Amino acid sequence: MVKKSGKKRSATAGWEGRAADALRVGPGFDLGELDTSATPGFDGDDAAGEALMKRLGRRLSDLQEMLYAEGRSGGTRAVLLVLQGMDTSGKGGISRHVLGMVDPQGVTVRAFGVPTEEERRHHYLWRIRRALPQPGRIGVFDRSHYEDVLVVRVDGLVEDDPWLERYEEIIRFERETEAARITVLKCALMISPHEQLERLSERLTRPDKFWKYNPSDLDVRAKWDDYMHAYQDVFDHTSTASAPWHVIPADHKWYARLAVTQLLVDTLEDMNLTWPAADFDLDAERARLARMLEETP
Amino acid sequence: MVKKSGKKRSATAGWEGRAADALRVGPGFDLGELDTSATPGFDGDDAAGEALMKRLGRRLSDLQEMLYAEGRSGGTRAVLLVLQGMDTSGKGGISRHVLGMVDPQGVTVRAFGVPTEEERRHHYLWRIRRALPQPGRIGVFDRSHYEDVLVVRVDGLVEDDPWLERYEEIIRFERETEAARITVLKCALMISPHEQLERLSERLTRPDKFWKYNPSDLDVRAKWDDYMHAYQDVFDHTSTASAPWHVIPADHKWYARLAVTQLLVDTLEDMNLTWPAADFDLDAERARLARMLEETP
Repeated sequence: MVKKSGKKRSATAGWEGRAADALRVGPGFDLGELDTSATPGFDGDDAAGEALMKRLGRRLSDLQEMLYAEGRSGGTRAVLLVLQGMDTSGKGGISRHVLGMVDPQGVTVRAFGVPTEEERRHHYLWRIRRALPQPGRIGVFDRSHYEDVLVVRVDGLVEDDPWLERYEEIIRFERETEAARITVLKCALMISPHEQLERLSERLTRPDKFWKYNPSDLDVRAKWDDYMHAYQDVFDHTSTASAPWHVIPADHKWYARLAVTQLLVDTLEDMNLTWPAADFDLDAERARLARMLEETP
Repeated sequence: MVKKSGKKRSATAGWEGRAADALRVGPGFDLGELDTSATPGFDGDDAAGEALMKRLGRRLSDLQEMLYAEGRSGGTRAVLLVLQGMDTSGKGGISRHVLGMVDPQGVTVRAFGVPTEEERRHHYLWRIRRALPQPGRIGVFDRSHYEDVLVVRVDGLVEDDPWLERYEEIIRFERETEAARITVLKCALMISPHEQLERLSERLTRPDKFWKYNPSDLDVRAKWDDYMHAYQDVFDHTSTASAPWHVIPADHKWYARLAVTQLLVDTLEDMNLTWPAADFDLDAERARLARMLEETP
């Protein structure tokens, strides 16, 4: 690809086609081939990315409000953003910097950690179903039901090999979720082992980051290849036509945030949202209010 | 009060003392005397308010993250912001513009409307208790248990006059909530009848606002004096030392948002939050990471 240079390019740079086309997992996808420092589909640098991000933020905010308005007016549609990725891959940053651009009233962020006692007594999808977004909302899962075919698999936390069965179960669950009018957007943030070490090291230089550091993160890290293998299997088996996976190179935080924002905006655009029409007599209400305004000091 | 004029004043203007002192409901408080277009305690105009708002936003964001970090590190403290006010008084705007300045992961906004069938089968505090913020979170109630001594009273939705009893119950409930380490901050946004009409009229001029308009809002409005009487009673009976009411003139949206932001910042400051200390051997972990970084391409 020939790159034009200079300020102008930066200011006008953008996506080449739809972001989803550059990020969607298709047949033959090979995680081992992924360049985690790439910026697929985006023809611009970080400055161009940040400029676009601002514009997208305003659009996202408008679309979110339309979705919320629809929910408040009897609509049942909602959106679920599923975020997966290794420690430090930036899932929390997506919640903060992408969803942080919209009205917090319309967003529910749910992080799934080690299951509680109660959660463990139920099927692994139990806690997931309970956390699905209400009508009109954007739900964010910071980790999700996919942990049950990732960490659970890598750490050998269940007997036998229920993975193929679980993939089927998950596909069924997501199909039901879509049938309940919740659009599912799945994003996996992928960083290199080196980038992860840099980010973990940074946490140890700042007292305001110590709480994010856990020595056992390094044990997880020792199983990097096992995780990549488990992720590859997840992508191979659960990237469906209606709920495909998007694999997002995330060594550049600006790119990962931009990519998820664009995917979210495109998802909402595809829903053809409109402002709910007035369900009352507009002229009559206007006249009534004008009369009252005259009478009220 | 003598006002200095000019740009300089605007840039340096701020609160005269603590915001809470200008807004807290004390003995002898008379809602009828309130000037809803005033900006008590703040010596500045809207431009000064917005400049301060930006600085406060950054501070609020830091404090919220410290609270969240504490919660993730075993702490149990949380904050609950209770918002009350007539339709169009700007409760939603507080959620959007004040809480919108912090990480959505750490915030839960819950709006309390007409109770559902299930909620109606329970005590009125049942749905409230279930919505209390988790450790480390800021919870926002857009309307609250106070609806059960406001609309329920004005519309005569229960038999007898349980108000005095309910005030006691609410005070007990809030005391329990504080004992569970959830700091309660109560704010009532107050607008004039004329301002409300202006805001309702505006909704009828914009197709993106029609969904917020409900002709029955005007029926509520017809009972304005009854509501003010019910509010006065609430303030008289439930403004306690540990969970006082703050009555915020809200004809100026910029002022109301600034006031709530400042109250929230002060509340969090009073909690003496600190970043959790490292619960691991910092030097050993640093050395381990440095070694790994050398070995990882």
